[in-house]
Amino acid sequence: MPFSVTALEGLPMVQPGDDLAALLLAAISRMGLTLTDGDIFCLAQKIVSKAENRQVLLADITAGPEAEALAREVEKDPRMVQLVLDESTDILRKRTGALIVRHKLGFVGANAGIDQSNIDHADGEAALLLPVDPDASAARLREALQRATGKRLGVIITDSHNRPWRLGTIGAAIGSAGVRVLQDHRGGHDIYGRELKVTLINRADAIATAATLMMGETTERLPAALVQGLPPEDTADTAQLINRPLDEDLFR
Amino acid sequence: MPFSVTALEGLPMVQPGDDLAALLLAAISRMGLTLTDGDIFCLAQKIVSKAENRQVLLADITAGPEAEALAREVEKDPRMVQLVLDESTDILRKRTGALIVRHKLGFVGANAGIDQSNIDHADGEAALLLPVDPDASAARLREALQRATGKRLGVIITDSHNRPWRLGTIGAAIGSAGVRVLQDHRGGHDIYGRELKVTLINRADAIATAATLMMGETTERLPAALVQGLPPEDTADTAQLINRPLDEDLFR
Repeated sequence: MPFSVTALEGLPMVQPGDDLAALLLAAISRMGLTLTDGDIFCLAQKIVSKAENRQVLLADITAGPEAEALAREVEKDPRMVQLVLDESTDILRKRTGALIVRHKLGFVGANAGIDQSNIDHADGEAALLLPVDPDASAARLREALQRATGKRLGVIITDSHNRPWRLGTIGAAIGSAGVRVLQDHRGGHDIYGRELKVTLINRADAIATAATLMMGETTERLPAALVQGLPPEDTADTAQLINRPLDEDLFR
Repeated sequence: MPFSVTALEGLPMVQPGDDLAALLLAAISRMGLTLTDGDIFCLAQKIVSKAENRQVLLADITAGPEAEALAREVEKDPRMVQLVLDESTDILRKRTGALIVRHKLGFVGANAGIDQSNIDHADGEAALLLPVDPDASAARLREALQRATGKRLGVIITDSHNRPWRLGTIGAAIGSAGVRVLQDHRGGHDIYGRELKVTLINRADAIATAATLMMGETTERLPAALVQGLPPEDTADTAQLINRPLDEDLFR
């Protein structure tokens, strides 16, 4: 069976408090798609954060001395830098316009995933933080979707990440429920009995990347996709599994 | 239209000199698949290297003093270390069993992509090097596939890469022809007129990653996949575009 990704069309601009499961299922219904056990909904972080009201008005933020100094160094708005510091545990790299940090959630990325694009706030300039606990958000969404449909489904919350050494963003799973995140072949052998070179496969990032390709293929207005054709999984895996312990990270 | 990935079934074990285009088209025909303009063939590096006779007998390699010293340090076979040195321009990191190097082709990865799994050589222990020029290999394959089918096709040669900070391999495009590799939104604006956060999308790695997911989903014996549902592209892009200049690499 082929693996397929369908961008979900016609989703409205998501507002705080919106019921994302209901919006996703309405899109599925409008598009005439049929859900099967194993199907995975991929949602851009942005709509999850918006539904969870993670917008912050910059006028409400006061930058402390550390944020002020760092903001001068990297030429960013000190209030944005304060938000990045609040959301992260370590600063790994700095350059003009960007701070590479370890987010409180454990992953490493630019500006703690805080986004200012496609944010509209009536009271002034705003920023959008990541969901407080994207794995928990995915689990809640999955439960609502399964309850409404009776199917065994997965949910991945995606973001776009830059990487060392390779240009261009790819998708990343920052929250996951009902999806086998890491496929472990450690100790496996090839057909000649030799130990396998590739021993641990990141399925969740791969699925997020495939979904993100379709979500971005036409317009920023396609913030969710349905992934079909993978077998249903009995798994308690979460996206937290992906975070490579910093002190074991050869690439650091 | 959904984006889909179908693993190509029933490919034989590839041998030096094999006509990969013919093998791929035979699989397409056996599986009853119909090609459309824009379809992309993804091939695991391993079968391309095998067809190009990139196997090396370790008995034919003599390790020099640098390789001998490095081999003691990282506990690898000195002949394998010699091959890694021959294939690379810089050593970026070392640890037991692995050397992270900049390959002559420009990308950064473990052990210069040299693989010893699923290699069978009658005359003793062997290793498989990457294709000499994977972009050229992809271009030749594309030409043969287009000539045979009359369709506008893309070809990506994939490998599995580890990454800093995130566990588990994902796919990478190490050779590409007929595929828009980087989608550039720099200077683009969101629906409220604010500059976009994500400005450069790595489509080739995303397609390689989606394909690799299906190629690995069942068995090591599925070394190629057909990606369908993306629009045909007029592009001279190659996978070389992906290599981030090391001196501009914030993550280095």
